[in-house]
Amino acid sequence: MKLTTVAVLVGLLWPVCASAAEVSSETSECIECHRTINSGMVSDWEKSRHARVTMQEALQRSSLERRVSAQQVPKGLGNVAIGCAECHTMSPAQHPDTFEHAGYHVHVVVTPKDCSVCHPTEVKEYGQNLMSHAHKNLNGNPVYKNLADTVNGIQVFENMQTTLQAPDAKTAAESCNYCHGTVVEVKGFKRRQTVMDEMTFPVLAGWPNQGVGRINPDGSVGSCAACHTRHAFSIEMARNPHTCSECHKGPDVPAYPVYTVSKHGNIYSSLGKEWDFEVVPWTVGRDFTAPTCATCHVSLLVNTEGEVVAERTHQMNNRLPWRIFGLIYAHPHPKSPDTTIMKNKAGLPLPTELTGEPASDFVIGTKEQAERRHTMQKVCLSCHSYGWVDGQWERFENTIQTANEMTLTATQIMVTAWEKGVAKGLAQNDSIFNEAIEKKWMDQWLFYGNSTRFASAMAGADYGVFANGRWRLAKNVQELLDLLELKLQVVKEEGQKD
Amino acid sequence: MKLTTVAVLVGLLWPVCASAAEVSSETSECIECHRTINSGMVSDWEKSRHARVTMQEALQRSSLERRVSAQQVPKGLGNVAIGCAECHTMSPAQHPDTFEHAGYHVHVVVTPKDCSVCHPTEVKEYGQNLMSHAHKNLNGNPVYKNLADTVNGIQVFENMQTTLQAPDAKTAAESCNYCHGTVVEVKGFKRRQTVMDEMTFPVLAGWPNQGVGRINPDGSVGSCAACHTRHAFSIEMARNPHTCSECHKGPDVPAYPVYTVSKHGNIYSSLGKEWDFEVVPWTVGRDFTAPTCATCHVSLLVNTEGEVVAERTHQMNNRLPWRIFGLIYAHPHPKSPDTTIMKNKAGLPLPTELTGEPASDFVIGTKEQAERRHTMQKVCLSCHSYGWVDGQWERFENTIQTANEMTLTATQIMVTAWEKGVAKGLAQNDSIFNEAIEKKWMDQWLFYGNSTRFASAMAGADYGVFANGRWRLAKNVQELLDLLELKLQVVKEEGQKD
Amino acid sequence: MKLTTVAVLVGLLWPVCASAAEVSSETSECIECHRTINSGMVSDWEKSRHARVTMQEALQRSSLERRVSAQQVPKGLGNVAIGCAECHTMSPAQHPDTFEHAGYHVHVVVTPKDCSVCHPTEVKEYGQNLMSHAHKNLNGNPVYKNLADTVNGIQVFENMQTTLQAPDAKTAAESCNYCHGTVVEVKGFKRRQTVMDEMTFPVLAGWPNQGVGRINPDGSVGSCAACHTRHAFSIEMARNPHTCSECHKGPDVPAYPVYTVSKHGNIYSSLGKEWDFEVVPWTVGRDFTAPTCATCHVSLLVNTEGEVVAERTHQMNNRLPWRIFGLIYAHPHPKSPDTTIMKNKAGLPLPTELTGEPASDFVIGTKEQAERRHTMQKVCLSCHSYGWVDGQWERFENTIQTANEMTLTATQIMVTAWEKGVAKGLAQNDSIFNEAIEKKWMDQWLFYGNSTRFASAMAGADYGVFANGRWRLAKNVQELLDLLELKLQVVKEEGQKD
Repeated sequence: MKLTTVAVLVGLLWPVCASAAEVSSETSECIECHRTINSGMVSDWEKSRHARVTMQEALQRSSLERRVSAQQVPKGLGNVAIGCAECHTMSPAQHPDTFEHAGYHVHVVVTPKDCSVCHPTEVKEYGQNLMSHAHKNLNGNPVYKNLADTVNGIQVFENMQTTLQAPDAKTAAESCNYCHGTVVEVKGFKRRQTVMDEMTFPVLAGWPNQGVGRINPDGSVGSCAACHTRHAFSIEMARNPHTCSECHKGPDVPAYPVYTVSKHGNIYSSLGKEWDFEVVPWTVGRDFTAPTCATCHVSLLVNTEGEVVAERTHQMNNRLPWRIFGLIYAHPHPKSPDTTIMKNKAGLPLPTELTGEPASDFVIGTKEQAERRHTMQKVCLSCHSYGWVDGQWERFENTIQTANEMTLTATQIMVTAWEKGVAKGLAQNDSIFNEAIEKKWMDQWLFYGNSTRFASAMAGADYGVFANGRWRLAKNVQELLDLLELKLQVVKEEGQKD
Repeated sequence: MKLTTVAVLVGLLWPVCASAAEVSSETSECIECHRTINSGMVSDWEKSRHARVTMQEALQRSSLERRVSAQQVPKGLGNVAIGCAECHTMSPAQHPDTFEHAGYHVHVVVTPKDCSVCHPTEVKEYGQNLMSHAHKNLNGNPVYKNLADTVNGIQVFENMQTTLQAPDAKTAAESCNYCHGTVVEVKGFKRRQTVMDEMTFPVLAGWPNQGVGRINPDGSVGSCAACHTRHAFSIEMARNPHTCSECHKGPDVPAYPVYTVSKHGNIYSSLGKEWDFEVVPWTVGRDFTAPTCATCHVSLLVNTEGEVVAERTHQMNNRLPWRIFGLIYAHPHPKSPDTTIMKNKAGLPLPTELTGEPASDFVIGTKEQAERRHTMQKVCLSCHSYGWVDGQWERFENTIQTANEMTLTATQIMVTAWEKGVAKGLAQNDSIFNEAIEKKWMDQWLFYGNSTRFASAMAGADYGVFANGRWRLAKNVQELLDLLELKLQVVKEEGQKD
Repeated sequence: MKLTTVAVLVGLLWPVCASAAEVSSETSECIECHRTINSGMVSDWEKSRHARVTMQEALQRSSLERRVSAQQVPKGLGNVAIGCAECHTMSPAQHPDTFEHAGYHVHVVVTPKDCSVCHPTEVKEYGQNLMSHAHKNLNGNPVYKNLADTVNGIQVFENMQTTLQAPDAKTAAESCNYCHGTVVEVKGFKRRQTVMDEMTFPVLAGWPNQGVGRINPDGSVGSCAACHTRHAFSIEMARNPHTCSECHKGPDVPAYPVYTVSKHGNIYSSLGKEWDFEVVPWTVGRDFTAPTCATCHVSLLVNTEGEVVAERTHQMNNRLPWRIFGLIYAHPHPKSPDTTIMKNKAGLPLPTELTGEPASDFVIGTKEQAERRHTMQKVCLSCHSYGWVDGQWERFENTIQTANEMTLTATQIMVTAWEKGVAKGLAQNDSIFNEAIEKKWMDQWLFYGNSTRFASAMAGADYGVFANGRWRLAKNVQELLDLLELKLQVVKEEGQKD
């Protein structure tokens, strides 16, 4: 072990060791076997705050410094570390995946409902977060579900045609639902040989999964471990941009690649190794000198005078006037985290019309947008002047419009293709996502439009020009037009010969 | 705060605190309000060298250790920290963006002219850097400007055709000009409510911007903060590759992705966290064990015996015989940083003919190339043997030629398309960048040719094969040919029917 | 130098300095000149373990802690540091690149044969690693060699056709063979001026190179410096994922980009700066809390009780049941590291038929697969429960099949194109990799199929959906079909007119 690491650990543990959290006898018993079998799991937890601080101690902190939102010590958790048994044996009756294990009633899947015993405010807010509904919002919306199926299904070639097979659950679980969350269901129990003995375990469908919108056996939604990774559950990790990048790196929601190419990301990458990612509240300028994802979207921030700059939020979109992840256009944020309830004028479960107008009954109004913009700008102003912030936002909101316009252009070409019969769409009761030209149209909004807007939002210009932004928006429009013309030409000639 | 951080801060501040730089009364007054309003800005500065060292102290260093190039203490800056007021109220009459603010004449945009008071050599050298002319070299060259417009403008679809609209200034500012620099102009002054009071501020067009070729209100060009990020202005950050990556990550100039996949980048990523990025001069092998961008292109380097390996340069291309960013071919570096003065034999403002021969009056000759090659190779030899360095350079200069040849092939196909009328070009007075086939031709040189050469220059092989290099050069040629043939076929059939 | 760095160095060197390794007089003489000429090279070595520990000391460690596998002290290496002379003058007669240099018989290219004096087991195992045969497996297999040539050769355009020229050796050396390894051959000796004097040096073809399958002048294969970078040869670097990423980052073998987007990569990026990458053996949970590439594929691992979790291996594929790098399909791992001996039923030197069935005589059987799966799963179980590990592997092995099926679909379309005469293939004695439609087919398996499988193997879902995986598999199939139809249409019309 390096001397720095020793120093850090000594430093961190010193005041804590003095009043080291006592481990419950139940948890001690878990550790006894699992230390050998799952060495990494146990060690990870031992380094965690859960292993070092009891609820009683946690509640002695001032309200700004507190990491728990329960107002009093939950029953039985007062003077022990939050260990294996405390979470995995909590309320066994509520958990259909509970099984008898070495004399305990243990459940595999710890859920937000379990976490809410100490962290009720965070869990409640998270319920208002679009992410907590990510499974249903994808799988319960026939348009989006069809999109996902055209990605995940096998295409079979026969007689000069391809046929799409329905994707299997295993594929969906490691594809879209890795992030959106699976449905975790108990399918029964089975005996298996372990290194200790033959034992009984639950058989879980959709497992493993830590997707943000996971449907848990106990009926709750989400997985706190998506960001607060098991079994350290550290705030340090959740505040690091790499955590968000697990699901926000691809070209559809390229927040992370945009961040890395921005000035903010540059400062983080160059200097972040000296920052304090652990302390609560998080002081702008002292603990860090450029924002990570969490800074702008989640964290409780104070200035160096101790004044609150932004309140903590696990709803996350309450600092966001716009949803720039366009489906297919950017639009004001939905009112409800359940977006399956939306309907545009054409009757489709989408937040906008095919021409871009928002389905206004289902999205927030300009007043709410103004409030959210103001909340976010307070964060910007921690490091930037008024003029700087104004300039940035004017460009950003201009780009929301221009990227939408480039989506409209592509959509008009696509509609022409459907109308002229060179592609089959809704009128033919066919998927609008399964043909080559349709997939090219999807590139326009799912990747290039979104990328251009994300690049604008976080000033990661380089990503928004040649890497995945405006260059591609422009090129794709011309290629769509070329393809349409070529296909029309061939159709015309076919027709003339007949 | 972590113990390591404490240790570092104590270590760094100790000798400085003893003779802590006095803050001027003007700067103290700035900080009084801005500490609360812009917590991050003030804290960032407080950690900076500017906050800790006066010019008087800076000038006491030996010439190799010195970070300032002024020969004597500028008036009024001798015994105070270089704080808010020192920069933002300097020479107010020279700055059209000066405004009355809390009793001071403050300007928003600190420019290289301001920095040159203490750093005259660096600013002068930077004036010879292509980057300082980046705004004009793009926006003042009709060929490149048209290219940029086809990227940034909105395409509108009507009657089976697209029409390109001129891009708006906000888009250009966050797209190409984010890096190339905007024109920052004072458009007037306006009153606005602040958290303190109602106050007057200048209205700036093209703001914010930190592009390398920014045109400042005072007429100077560039922004030192592009690399020496406000308000720490740290050499540590400028020496980190993430800084360069803000503008050199995309497929057009993929220096950073090539670096990360090279052995050099690997060593930096694996071991760089222990290096010393602060010390001047920078000792090869002791302070770092593999180069970053700055090592090869900018920094003053010494060997472990204290002998100079390379002089500091802010011109940056005086270690570079070739400009491998091909427009459209790689070529010897331009003589003048203002590239708008170039003319090839065809009369176009380009550094080469359409067939690849350099416009020799405007580029450096073989003698100057040899000197620059020798200067760079001295850096290579710090860690590599003669044979190693020779081998690397032979491959590199071979690849400059082969990548040019692959651009020539694509260009010949493109010229055929123009000649045979399946695309409209200069003869039709049409843009050569606006059609699908033309954009495919652009891919060849703007991305794949450049990427192949960058991968060769820095031995980031993996990037130059399948990621964005030779594979794509080869595939793109065949696709161009396919498209040309398909279009010719359709045109022929059209003709035969008529 | 930073205080942390000082602290680390003091900490690391203290116990070693006490018994600091004596440097041989030969090595001292090397350093005398080279310290000035190649400052970085010498400093790098001085920080290495080779500079600090003698073989005698190394052999005093317990077997688990030992970094050398020789059972006794090799002649002459007992009580001196392993310095310049120890490696570069070893067995001069065996090395055709040996030259007379300042009174010594020095060879440039240190080879695995040299390293095997102290590390025989590692070199022997590495000989069973596919990587050690990487040069021949590519360049000695006519199918793969042709593929490489279509990537590296120059295409010339004339008479509406392109002709492929054979690639030159310099291009191959910095393209495919950068990773696969060059053939390093002594072409003679020449005099050259140095900063010291005129001197004689060998002229080496294929130099520089550190490819994993390098063919060395002494007839041995590989380069230990590919991962254990000269001249520190540190285990820390080899254990960092950046080392593997030099050759496993592109879309053909995207292990690194998949890792970075996985939970494992996230933990490494967020918290890895505090891990101990130096200690042997490597303790899961204590030294690190998430795996790097080396953890799963190479390293000797123990749990916190000191029990061995996995034995060290430089064969590397003995924890791997499947070769997911599909050529063109994924398949059980080859039995022999020399894959040029393989033959499928069609007589081609490939591990599978064109329809996907493995060439079963040449790949490992299900029993060996089961053993390898079990070995790898023991590593997984260090941090994960049985149910978790089962679920992950079921998905992974399902994806091996589905990605193969999507390759089959594309191949069937390609075969149709060959049969119907819109592309020229084996029947016409033409390359199957040189036309646009063929290169599109290659995208399917060389990039998208592989990426989907790598994303599955390491649970980097985001990469395997939109970034480079299933989305592209699906889109590419439709585009192939579109292109086939368009070409058939044109051919038909051509025919009808004739």
